[in-house]
Parts: sequence; structure tokens; C-alpha cells
Amino acid sequence: MTLLNPHYLKLQGSYLFATIAQRVRAYKEAHGDAQVISLGIGDVSQPLVPAVVNALEEACREMGHAETFRGYGPEQGYAFLREAVAKHDYQARNLDIQADEIFISDGAKSDVANFQELFDLNSTVALQDPVYPVYLDTNVMAGRTGVFENGRYGRIIYLPCTQEHGFVPQLPKGHADIIYLCSPNNPTGAALTKSQLQMWVDYARTHKSLILFDSAYEAYITDPDLPHSIYEIPGAREVAVEFRSFSKTAGFTGTRCAYTVVPKTVQVYDQSGHAHMLCDLWLRRQTTKFNGVPYVIQRAAQAVYCEQGQTQIRKVIALYHQNAQIILQALTQAGMTAFGGQNAPYIWLKTPAGMPSWDFFELLLQQAQVVGTPGVGFGLCGEGFFRLTAFNTPELTKQAAQRIARLKL
Amino acid sequence: MTLLNPHYLKLQGSYLFATIAQRVRAYKEAHGDAQVISLGIGDVSQPLVPAVVNALEEACREMGHAETFRGYGPEQGYAFLREAVAKHDYQARNLDIQADEIFISDGAKSDVANFQELFDLNSTVALQDPVYPVYLDTNVMAGRTGVFENGRYGRIIYLPCTQEHGFVPQLPKGHADIIYLCSPNNPTGAALTKSQLQMWVDYARTHKSLILFDSAYEAYITDPDLPHSIYEIPGAREVAVEFRSFSKTAGFTGTRCAYTVVPKTVQVYDQSGHAHMLCDLWLRRQTTKFNGVPYVIQRAAQAVYCEQGQTQIRKVIALYHQNAQIILQALTQAGMTAFGGQNAPYIWLKTPAGMPSWDFFELLLQQAQVVGTPGVGFGLCGEGFFRLTAFNTPELTKQAAQRIARLKL
Repeated sequence: MTLLNPHYLKLQGSYLFATIAQRVRAYKEAHGDAQVISLGIGDVSQPLVPAVVNALEEACREMGHAETFRGYGPEQGYAFLREAVAKHDYQARNLDIQADEIFISDGAKSDVANFQELFDLNSTVALQDPVYPVYLDTNVMAGRTGVFENGRYGRIIYLPCTQEHGFVPQLPKGHADIIYLCSPNNPTGAALTKSQLQMWVDYARTHKSLILFDSAYEAYITDPDLPHSIYEIPGAREVAVEFRSFSKTAGFTGTRCAYTVVPKTVQVYDQSGHAHMLCDLWLRRQTTKFNGVPYVIQRAAQAVYCEQGQTQIRKVIALYHQNAQIILQALTQAGMTAFGGQNAPYIWLKTPAGMPSWDFFELLLQQAQVVGTPGVGFGLCGEGFFRLTAFNTPELTKQAAQRIARLKL
Repeated sequence: MTLLNPHYLKLQGSYLFATIAQRVRAYKEAHGDAQVISLGIGDVSQPLVPAVVNALEEACREMGHAETFRGYGPEQGYAFLREAVAKHDYQARNLDIQADEIFISDGAKSDVANFQELFDLNSTVALQDPVYPVYLDTNVMAGRTGVFENGRYGRIIYLPCTQEHGFVPQLPKGHADIIYLCSPNNPTGAALTKSQLQMWVDYARTHKSLILFDSAYEAYITDPDLPHSIYEIPGAREVAVEFRSFSKTAGFTGTRCAYTVVPKTVQVYDQSGHAHMLCDLWLRRQTTKFNGVPYVIQRAAQAVYCEQGQTQIRKVIALYHQNAQIILQALTQAGMTAFGGQNAPYIWLKTPAGMPSWDFFELLLQQAQVVGTPGVGFGLCGEGFFRLTAFNTPELTKQAAQRIARLKL
């Protein structure tokens, strides 16, 4: 008899965004004429920039000729892309990251989901609350948690990110082996300062812990003092892995390319206390379970780093920033309190009069035909909050903002 | 202290093809002028066919315009591709497989590697020997095996595929929960008949086991009586998952697209004996850990099914078949015995005078500058055998064949 992985049964309901999609479908079916605007899942609206499309088309043509055709590529990614990443995203900022420490993948979601496979099932996991559900659910599925009771999984160390502390996670009292941090944060939009991040790096060095740092939204940082990479923090090369994505930086949500940085100086330990290079373990995982990102997509990602590519994507990011400001203004007009949107594409609003998140989801859908994401979907500490994103078109964002400004609360 | 997954330490050496690549690099460095021909890893040589390139380019242009841009797609794959797969690969052959039972992915390697996550760690795994290493290594990494001793992992049920039985696996004496079958087979090139496959489906139904059926090479079947899909076998819809790929069918090794069929009638069980739909579990896995295949790649895969696409890919497959015949002839000329190559792109040769596989690897590299894959790299029962593939260009295959025919054995 084939027994299923019993940990799957601990999972709560279906995946957050799938649930939202179902509710929106049901609303649309009941209101055929409703023009629903999504400020929800965080998908981008702007097309790929011309430099990227040109590189993509050129690579497609290469695939049609025997002389330039590419079959299996290196599982870790082509050197041309890894070198571009290392040079532009790290070395140009005086950060010591080399091309052979970069792993190209089909998405930061896949990488943050798969990375936990490298660790002992008894490892203690700490994560922010509210949190991007993938960090948590993948550890549930692996069996690194107890059962779900009163809104919490056993064995997980939750790091509450509350309004009181500016949505910044505080160090845990106990010991955590693996710490997921996301800055600029999804969903709260809060970005960690260098000193806040230093505190975590110091903790990880003291405890021989590992930080899995998700900086998928670093391109949205406007404050010049905020760190874009955890490797700006002294000591981070010993204790941190960094996840980045082209999804929000260059509109690759449907094009699929991301990368993970695993410095050769990060070590993990076996039961006897012997150190092993984490980089080697991830390489082994990727060569065994993955066959790399399509060649044409890697050429597209490379084009993000050329001069025109950089100019073009910065314009798109500026447009999304402008959207965020428009949403923030509308929320203020409606009398609501909101956070984020300055160094992140996410706006984290406080629901009026402490309304539960899912109630506000319905209110917003019914009154304004605007879709957002209930804060509680990201964790208990997200209850009473709600996430809006800046990724829709300027036109629809303005329309949504007008409707939000008129909400009867 | 962050402990690593202890099962990674059970893995033997590095991944087979990575080892081969290292040896070839070393040989080339020592012999600067050597023209090495690879009949090794099984990468294709022919470019994408025009119908596919056109669809790819068209989709790239769509990505550059707001009206036709695509962001996140469905994790399971776009309906246009799932419907094309269901219609052409199954319904047109009178097989009852629906579009919502198809899951599009970035590769059969990823899918066969990830699928084991759905099952209890105490499940008993049966696999063919010799075998594609990914089935085995991913179960080692998950902890579903004992340690490696005398060439075997504990707890794995090995199904010897020997010359005596035409490289066909025999039913195990004991109980297996999860059975990996690959037909047409990599590496032996043997294809299971309907009655042989029926035997396995009957076993799985009796034992409430699950068959993970890899039919990545079905397009190479020439014998009209052989099954292309396990769903041609009565009862298979209750006990089998099928993996397919565009890699060898349409030259997608560097383009990355594949699919997995999980019929809604396949059930697995929890500890209390309650049945669960496997299809739901896989959907949950994919929505949590994967964000789908690039839109442009899915359009490229769809084009494989159009009339021109079908005509064009069949020509390429015929060319590889011709290569296989050329290699088989050369092996006969050299006095060797070889199998496969009729219903598969793989040729499985018996090394001369029982020479160990890796010795023959060196002999072939040194004498003929031809690279192949040592049979023992696929398992103990592969010792004394060697795999060659039909995927190089006709020109280089002919050159390699001439060199092979002249081998001094």
C-alpha cells in the first residue's frame, strides 16, 4: 500500500493565492458586469523591456540553427549570466561574491522551497510572522514542524513582526538553526536597516545558524542607507544564503528566472560536528534534481544588465513606485493607516476598526471591486492587516485608488 | 548549529554525467588536438524545428507588448498546452486522459526527482538495475534507503535487467510500494511489451503499489505492437503516473519542457487507510514549490503538436534512428554485441571480453576519442555494458562509427 507523506495532511487549506483566485472567480460569476481590479497576487503588468525582448528573440533564432543551437546547459546556469550577476549585483557594489557562488534557477519560489531539503529534519526553523507562505509550507511538507494548533505549527519559532516594532523581527530567545528573513519584506513592505541585519548576522555567527535571506525586492529600495544585499553586512559570507529574482526587478513573473547566492564560506555540520560546504550540497541537489533554466531565458536575463536594459527596467520600477504612492494617498483619504510602499512594492494597511482581514477582503471586493491579500493569510500577526501591491498598470491603479478613496468604512 | 540532511552523505561520488564531463575535460587538456566525439550524455544535436522556433519568436514578441504580455501562469501549465497534450498524445490514441490530469513542468528530470516527496519515508522503492541515476539518488537524499554497501543501498528493491531476460525487469518476490519503470529504457534501450507491462500493472493493483512510469523516449518506438503509454494497459489509470518530455521528442534539452500525467483515479493512503487523490497532492506540491514553465516555452511546446511541427520532429527522430543503425553496424564490425537502438535512442553494448565499464570508457576515449557512458554508472547490473546514444549529428556519428569499427579489442 502506497502511503502518502503524512506531513502533507498538516497543511492548512489550500494555497493562499489559489483561495483568493477562487473567491474572485465566484464573485465575477455572480456579477457578470463587474470590473474587478487586482492589487492582489503581486503579478506585474508592464511588458518585458525592449532590450530583454530583443535578446530573447535573438536567442530563439540561435536555437533554430545547428551552429548556434544549445542543448543541455550547466545545471548551475551559464557562465555568461552568472558572471553578469556577480559583477553587476555584487562586485560593482564592492561585495565579494564570485560567479561560481551564483546558481541560476527558474524562480526564487522554487529555490526557497527546495533549499530546506539540504538540512536535517530536526532543525529548528525561525520565520517572520506574517510571512510569505512558501517558507512555512515547505517546512511543513518536509516534516520540520509539529501539527497546527491555534493558528501555529509546533516546533516553528515565529518571529512576530508587529506595528509596535515597525514590523521588524526581534531575535528569538531560544536557538534557531535556520532563519528565513525577507527584506524588503513581503508582505509588510518593511526593509531592514544595516544595524538590524547586523544583529541577525551576529546571532547566526554565535549560534552557528544559517540565514536564508530573500531579497527579491531589493530593486525597490529608495533609501540610500538601506542594504540591498545581506553581504553588505560584515560576517554574512559565513552564515547567509541570498535569494534574488528577475520577477519583480525586470517583469519576469511569466518568464521565470532567478538566482541564489551560496558563498563558498558557508558551512553546515554533520552529526559528528564535521563541517561541509553548503555550496557543494546545493550543487549536488541541483545537478541531481534540476536541468537548468532554458538557454533563451538566460540570454533574456543577461540583457537586464546591459546599459539599455538597466535604463529600461529602472523606468518600469519608477512607474510601480508611483503606483504605490497613489495607493498610499487613497488609503489616507479613506482614513486608513498604511505602511510600506517606499522601499518595497507592497503596501501593508491596517484594516479599519480592527476588522478581520478576510472581512476586509470581502468589503473591498464588494464595495470597490478591488482584490488584495488578507494579512492573516501570511500568519497570525497579519490579522487585522491587508496587503496591496503596486504592480498593476497606472490606469487601473488610479481607478482602484479612486474606488478605495470612496470606501464607506 | 545547522545540521545537514544526513542522507546526502550516503550519496556515492558525484553525479555520473558530471564525472564523465570531468574526465573528458582532463583528456582534452592533455591532448589539445584531439577531436572528441560524444555519444555520451544523450544531448541532442539537431536544432529546434522551424514550427517551434516560429512559435517561440511569436511568443517573445507578445511578451514585449502590454496587451499580450503574460505574467504568472497557472502552476499546472496553460490550458492550451495541457489540452494539446491530452488530445494528441492520449485521446487520439483512444486513451482516457484529460487535460486536468496533465502537469506541465521544466523537465522530466525535475518531475521524477520531485515526485517521491509525496510519499512516506518508510515506503519501499523498487527500481530497475541498471537505472537512470535520478530515481535512485533522489530517494537516497530523501532518506528512503539504508547505507551503501557492496554496490547496493539498503532497503531498495533492485530489479536486475540482465541479458538473460532481454533486460526486462522481473516482478520482485516481496512488496514494493513505489516502482520506477522506464520504457523504452534508459540505458538499455529495451522496451516493454503490453503483456510485460500488464504484469506490472496487475502487481501494482494487487499490492496497492504505485508505478512511476518514465516514457520520455516513447517517440522512438518503431515496433507497432509496443505500448507508447502505460495507459494502454487496462487498470493502469488506478496505479500509474506517467512522465513525458519534449527533450528527446522535439530537441528541448536546452529549452526545458516536459509533463507528468497524474490520473484522478490514482489513490494513495494515509496511516489510517483513508484514500487520498494523488493528483491533489501533486497539485499542492507544484503550487507551493513551483511557478510554472515560461509562457514562451509553453507556446513552443504547443507548436510541436501542429501539423508542420509533427512532420518536422518526425524527420529529426528518423535522423536519430538512422544514427542508431550506423552505430549498431560499427559495433558489429568491431565484433561487439549490442542491444537497443530499434525502439530507443540508446544502444547498450556488451564490453569486449567482459571488460569493466570504466575501462572500456577509457579505451574508447583513448583509441577512438569517442565518449560514452559506462554501464556500471547506472547500477551493478550495468557492469560489463556501455551506453551509446544516437543523438549526435549524422556526420559526427559516422565519424565515430568509423573509429569504433577500427577499435583494437
